[in-house]
Amino acid sequence: MTIEHKDKNSVGLVQKQFFTFATETPLRLESGASLGPITVCYETMGTLNAEGTNAILITHAFSGDSHVAGYYSEEDPKPGWWNIMVGPGKPIDTAKYFVICSNILGGCTGTTGPASINPATNEPYGLNFPVVTIGDMVRTQKRLLDHLGIRRLLTVIGGSVGGMQVLEWAMRYPDMMASAIPLATTTRHSALAIAFNEIGRQAIMSDPNFNKGDYYGKNKPDLGLALARMIGHVTYLSDHAMREKFGRRLQNRKTLAFDFEANFQVESYLRYQGSKFTQRFDANSFLYITKAADYYDVKHQHGNGSEIEAFAKVKARMLVISFTSDWLYPTYQSREMVKAMKKNRLNVSFCEIEAKCGHDAFIVSNERQSSLIRNFIECVAAEELHHAF
Amino acid sequence: MTIEHKDKNSVGLVQKQFFTFATETPLRLESGASLGPITVCYETMGTLNAEGTNAILITHAFSGDSHVAGYYSEEDPKPGWWNIMVGPGKPIDTAKYFVICSNILGGCTGTTGPASINPATNEPYGLNFPVVTIGDMVRTQKRLLDHLGIRRLLTVIGGSVGGMQVLEWAMRYPDMMASAIPLATTTRHSALAIAFNEIGRQAIMSDPNFNKGDYYGKNKPDLGLALARMIGHVTYLSDHAMREKFGRRLQNRKTLAFDFEANFQVESYLRYQGSKFTQRFDANSFLYITKAADYYDVKHQHGNGSEIEAFAKVKARMLVISFTSDWLYPTYQSREMVKAMKKNRLNVSFCEIEAKCGHDAFIVSNERQSSLIRNFIECVAAEELHHAF
Repeated sequence: MTIEHKDKNSVGLVQKQFFTFATETPLRLESGASLGPITVCYETMGTLNAEGTNAILITHAFSGDSHVAGYYSEEDPKPGWWNIMVGPGKPIDTAKYFVICSNILGGCTGTTGPASINPATNEPYGLNFPVVTIGDMVRTQKRLLDHLGIRRLLTVIGGSVGGMQVLEWAMRYPDMMASAIPLATTTRHSALAIAFNEIGRQAIMSDPNFNKGDYYGKNKPDLGLALARMIGHVTYLSDHAMREKFGRRLQNRKTLAFDFEANFQVESYLRYQGSKFTQRFDANSFLYITKAADYYDVKHQHGNGSEIEAFAKVKARMLVISFTSDWLYPTYQSREMVKAMKKNRLNVSFCEIEAKCGHDAFIVSNERQSSLIRNFIECVAAEELHHAF
Repeated sequence: MTIEHKDKNSVGLVQKQFFTFATETPLRLESGASLGPITVCYETMGTLNAEGTNAILITHAFSGDSHVAGYYSEEDPKPGWWNIMVGPGKPIDTAKYFVICSNILGGCTGTTGPASINPATNEPYGLNFPVVTIGDMVRTQKRLLDHLGIRRLLTVIGGSVGGMQVLEWAMRYPDMMASAIPLATTTRHSALAIAFNEIGRQAIMSDPNFNKGDYYGKNKPDLGLALARMIGHVTYLSDHAMREKFGRRLQNRKTLAFDFEANFQVESYLRYQGSKFTQRFDANSFLYITKAADYYDVKHQHGNGSEIEAFAKVKARMLVISFTSDWLYPTYQSREMVKAMKKNRLNVSFCEIEAKCGHDAFIVSNERQSSLIRNFIECVAAEELHHAF
């Protein structure tokens, strides 16, 4: 079976690429700690035009990675995580735009993170890896773009923790981007969002295999990581989505079993999702990325305590999207952000999309989101032609 | 310091009492399994009148117990869990009514549960304790009332899992009660509610100390139980309540610590709540009670698949109360229940109370709830006088 058969609008074959920096001089992180060398794993799709005006950076969410679209090989059963959005003729049209996506700092699919080798010890960092921030992730992406010779971005787009990176980009590098599209995100985690992340972290750290983060090459804290994922999974869905998807249906049986096995489909599904996650994700990365998300707060990092001031230097034209059933980053949080943007007279479009599937809505096929993003990018691209720099 | 000083409307000193049944013939449970002997731990407040027409049964929620109001001793620092509602002159007025509350079957504060001694082995039951249902809990309460010589109840009142028991009472013993007050409850758990319970159960069962439920006299699965409680705790609150209570405030510090200790107050609070819970609750009881709640479904247990039919035999006058910010058992679930009651021409009052503190609202001081319950019970009591049986 060829890619053509699988998906005729696919970007086709892509491959992981790597860029290493901070080899001589380590990167000074927001915490004050230093880190280096740093390797960034990234993938690109489409072609950068001669003027360098068609680059789009996609920032991935918590458990995403650089593999945003396309396939690694002809046999690859599954495309990248946003294949519905990225490809020739798709809303993020790789026939027109040059698309870059990199795995975030602290991740576990190629970019330097807690599982990487600490040059000081020749052992994996584990918990000796410094706590990184959304700002550190974005500065790492900036170094990658410098390396690729990209001086300006048509847009930066991402959802959830990816959306935080979008906001950070707009605040940190206002002259380097024409627009920004933060999806299903927030300028700071609520106590509720921190609480769920903290319970996930506690689940991991309570697993006896965790061994203070030093478990590489030994038994991994899979039970803890699976629990953490189950919690996360529920927060990505909605009451309605779970009712439609599972309701109270039983798993492979007609009557209650009166035991503690997975009787209901939702139980079975969560156990499966939790266990599957441990095969592809590093528990320490769970700790570091959730911590970066919890720490993120534009008010303090960019606004001296004021959300309005945080957006003062932003120049990017904005498209903010939230989803009605997202209870992790509810619409009121997007509205607050839009209000702060408008107080700064930014050109901002905001849309709350009616969706039943909760926070996950932004990665699910959604015509409204697709057309909003397609039109917004086309519009920004047209403006960029007029204001070529 | 005397009780009088603590709370002049307190029921004063109360004590745990015990009643044992199913000594000769074990109780046949809904699962088909048998259990006996069964000891019920209960407390009573007020005095049963000569006509036996002033008895009120209070059914407790998941982590509640028989200690609904008053103090165990003069030195007792804390009264029972619903002291705001139960006492002389309070909405459930012990100067007028005889109030009974018993610990539920499967519990861990005096009523037979998984920590009790299995007469067949002379060891604690552990996971050999049979899976019990809300119906089994209610049948146990009925035996207690028989023992106390109570032939009719003025009302049965309870919230959350206690509310399920209220509904079960109304369906199972329609001639034995004048009214019923289910608060913040549901006729069946949604997939979302099952999911959170299941993650809690998985947290306990993943703890190496769990040892298939056989941990009595050994190290207990405290880490797992603490995690399960943290998850539960978040579901009892609301986004708004957590924002007001914690926001993003840091715990004993002014800047981020860049580590994995509890930096935010909400993290510290959850760790404390989780750990505190392990001192008073048995992990196996967590499994059994959450399972009973997940299994509960009036449609199947009383209505041959129809929620309307489930209420067909009910005679009790009903007061149903839900809370706007309760996302565990949202108002739409109460509305469905009320609809089914009305289809059966039951006398039902329904009120959705504006409250910001989530599912927990029903145990928190709330004037609207207090006056609704006070007036409803007074009204039912007056009717009972007219229709003395």
